[in-house]
Amino acid sequence: MATGGSEANNSLQAICYKRGSLQLLDQRKLPLETTYLDILNAKDGWLAIRDMVVRGAPAIAISAALSLAVEVFNLDAFNGTSFDAASFLGDKLEYLVSSRPTAVNLSDAATKLKEIITKAVATASEPNTVFQAYIEAAEIMLEDDVASNKAIGSYGAKFLQHQLKHTRRLSILTHCNTGSLATAGYGTALGVIRALHTEGVLERAFCTETRPFNQGSRLTAFELVHDKIPATLIADSAAAALMKDGRVGAVIVGADRVAANGDTANKIGTYSLALCARHHDIPFYVAAPLTSIDLSLSSGQEIVIEERSPKELLHTRGGLGEQVAASGICVWNPAFDVTPANLIAGIITEKGVITKTDNDAFDIKDFVRKAARQNAV
Amino acid sequence: MATGGSEANNSLQAICYKRGSLQLLDQRKLPLETTYLDILNAKDGWLAIRDMVVRGAPAIAISAALSLAVEVFNLDAFNGTSFDAASFLGDKLEYLVSSRPTAVNLSDAATKLKEIITKAVATASEPNTVFQAYIEAAEIMLEDDVASNKAIGSYGAKFLQHQLKHTRRLSILTHCNTGSLATAGYGTALGVIRALHTEGVLERAFCTETRPFNQGSRLTAFELVHDKIPATLIADSAAAALMKDGRVGAVIVGADRVAANGDTANKIGTYSLALCARHHDIPFYVAAPLTSIDLSLSSGQEIVIEERSPKELLHTRGGLGEQVAASGICVWNPAFDVTPANLIAGIITEKGVITKTDNDAFDIKDFVRKAARQNAV
Repeated sequence: MATGGSEANNSLQAICYKRGSLQLLDQRKLPLETTYLDILNAKDGWLAIRDMVVRGAPAIAISAALSLAVEVFNLDAFNGTSFDAASFLGDKLEYLVSSRPTAVNLSDAATKLKEIITKAVATASEPNTVFQAYIEAAEIMLEDDVASNKAIGSYGAKFLQHQLKHTRRLSILTHCNTGSLATAGYGTALGVIRALHTEGVLERAFCTETRPFNQGSRLTAFELVHDKIPATLIADSAAAALMKDGRVGAVIVGADRVAANGDTANKIGTYSLALCARHHDIPFYVAAPLTSIDLSLSSGQEIVIEERSPKELLHTRGGLGEQVAASGICVWNPAFDVTPANLIAGIITEKGVITKTDNDAFDIKDFVRKAARQNAV
Repeated sequence: MATGGSEANNSLQAICYKRGSLQLLDQRKLPLETTYLDILNAKDGWLAIRDMVVRGAPAIAISAALSLAVEVFNLDAFNGTSFDAASFLGDKLEYLVSSRPTAVNLSDAATKLKEIITKAVATASEPNTVFQAYIEAAEIMLEDDVASNKAIGSYGAKFLQHQLKHTRRLSILTHCNTGSLATAGYGTALGVIRALHTEGVLERAFCTETRPFNQGSRLTAFELVHDKIPATLIADSAAAALMKDGRVGAVIVGADRVAANGDTANKIGTYSLALCARHHDIPFYVAAPLTSIDLSLSSGQEIVIEERSPKELLHTRGGLGEQVAASGICVWNPAFDVTPANLIAGIITEKGVITKTDNDAFDIKDFVRKAARQNAV
């Protein structure tokens, strides 16, 4: 069974999976070395997640699920009933969740997989039938995420070409890493850039450094170079000058969480880019799967912003490297900021682009309801 | 003769001068080590400038002038006429200018000093009279720059308190380094922050990292900690979120060059801060001596922006440290950007604050003319 993550395409693959085998790109060594680690079982998966070999919420969840799929596929023998098999899988999933206890996607994925195991064990007489059901479910998770990203890319690229009515090619500015290194593959905002490039309408991608953790210079720049997409790295603070020079056709960023009104929490610096884009009349888009939308949050005010370690600003390499800043200085290091919906021109999802209604607001609930109805059909 | 640079105050001194002795703070070792180097003569001064012991346009010019003042003060004997003394000084000044041939302040200072030497030699019969005139002129240069910065600080602090009518204390956001490490002492934008602190009305200073060269985290943070000013370091891209939180009362930055209409070239990222400040209705000020105003430039469009080495984004420590970014990525690294006058609420100078006229524009020419008339009186 070929999966999304391993199908032939030119875009960088951080998760290389074929039934019975899994390799993860060791992101700790990027951008200097491209090394893949063999993941033979759930223990290897657990270590890879804890040790930051893999990062990005969807990527973590899928890597965990697949590590266990590889383990059970390669089991020599299993002494036990189908119930024992279900229990074995449940325990391993619990163990995998403990690798990064605060990762919501990971625990959500484990919950979904456990439901599938429970269903399977209700009709299965053989343990292998349960294992088989688990393996297929984990593979579908991988396929779905890649397919969802490709749909985001495709919808986004079509929409942008239509909306901006550009006769010439478009340059896109993005922030942070939303590509193959953060998802199961292809990416969200970076997926739209990939799609524009594939369709021959991308002039150039601009990526910010994304201080303080440098996801842009380390990871996005790496993906863009790998995929041979014309790309330029800038300091976060140079974005406004770049826009003033007329060199940015649109800004596209990912999302950590989107509230019901369209307010979007994303990597620190996103809000600043949105303000600068507004001043220069440059459309600003969010690209995210529907799973990033949290209808329980009425607005961005309800989103709690995580503050990260001062070390990320005081030292290089996210706090692990040499000291840069003066000793004794206080630091404010929020991980995210919230961009209000009024600065966002559209939200690009795997079911299409959510645009503003006549009263200049997003009706996200309506969009999600219609998308669910589509799925049901 | 006590000079500005060596007078007793709590603010950091990068240039420690007393007649016959000069020590420069080795800025290459900041923020990890505070080491002063003895500068005994023009050769030491030349090396200190070339090797980046001292940086910042005014600081370089004054260090060069003082290094020669120390050398001639300590000369055991000088065999020659007053004309020989003038020629000796002229040659040494030429030599000092060659330490950083592109530094305009340095060559301007040398030109001024040569004029003073020429005047002195016209009436002097002894070489020592010429040397004495040179030493005094160099010392006045130091005193004037510190006095000018203190006037900027004082005018700025008074203006802000009056303008903002704050009953409570003010928090100020600044960018790059405009303090004792870039000037002869005290600083421009940082001078205003120092003055607000001295007057007990500063709540907190926020300084940006100032990517890619980290003048904020390395130098400004160091000065603020040294002076025990309550201060917090943020990533450049976090400024908008900080403003949205209501934590910034005003933004004050320095200037590389101010055009006749008030458009201001300053460290990359300044324009982005000005846009974010405007969106949040936070006043944005430029603090600079009148020498930074170039009336020959009608607007910022005439300012050519220097592009710096890609290495500053690709590696740590301004290009000298370990690799951060992906190999092969293109880089756009402008040193400065231009903030249009319409985003600037006032220009704080050593002669007072230039504010907008009734037609919402700066009349800088008029201000400069009046200041010159004041001086003449």
